[in-house]
Amino acid sequence: MAKSVFYHAGCPVCLSAEHDIVNLVGADQVEVVHIGQDRNRIEEAEKAGVKSVPALVTHNGNVLHINFGASLADVRG
Amino acid sequence: MAKSVFYHAGCPVCLSAEHDIVNLVGADQVEVVHIGQDRNRIEEAEKAGVKSVPALVTHNGNVLHINFGASLADVRG
Repeated sequence: MAKSVFYHAGCPVCLSAEHDIVNLVGADQVEVVHIGQDRNRIEEAEKAGVKSVPALVTHNGNVLHINFGASLADVRG
Repeated sequence: MAKSVFYHAGCPVCLSAEHDIVNLVGADQVEVVHIGQDRNRIEEAEKAGVKSVPALVTHNGNVLHINFGASLADVRG
């Protein structure tokens, strides 16, 4: 199974959700991407359908927006 | 580890998220509760901090609101 990708921007809501998701899914099953720092991956997240962070893109391409930290427009700045 | 509880109300957004979460977390690790049908558990969900469905309450009590299907007020009707 391909990994899921968890996109976040370092906000408190993001970090709390990251902790929960990594615990639930397993650290080896999810790639964590900080798009606030790793800014060249913002476009990849948008193309995957991510509208806000934190969000989990599953291995089959579904986007789960989890709680609400920041819109992608805000991360892009 | 105690099970997580996934609350939903049968809407298409809920069912899609349920499928993803059960796949990611593992069916044996999550209890799925349809609060549209199992209405006596709406109050339990509210007390856990669920504001909208679908939502996952983790074993340590954190609430992850996933996408947006319906507010709890709408489910309560």
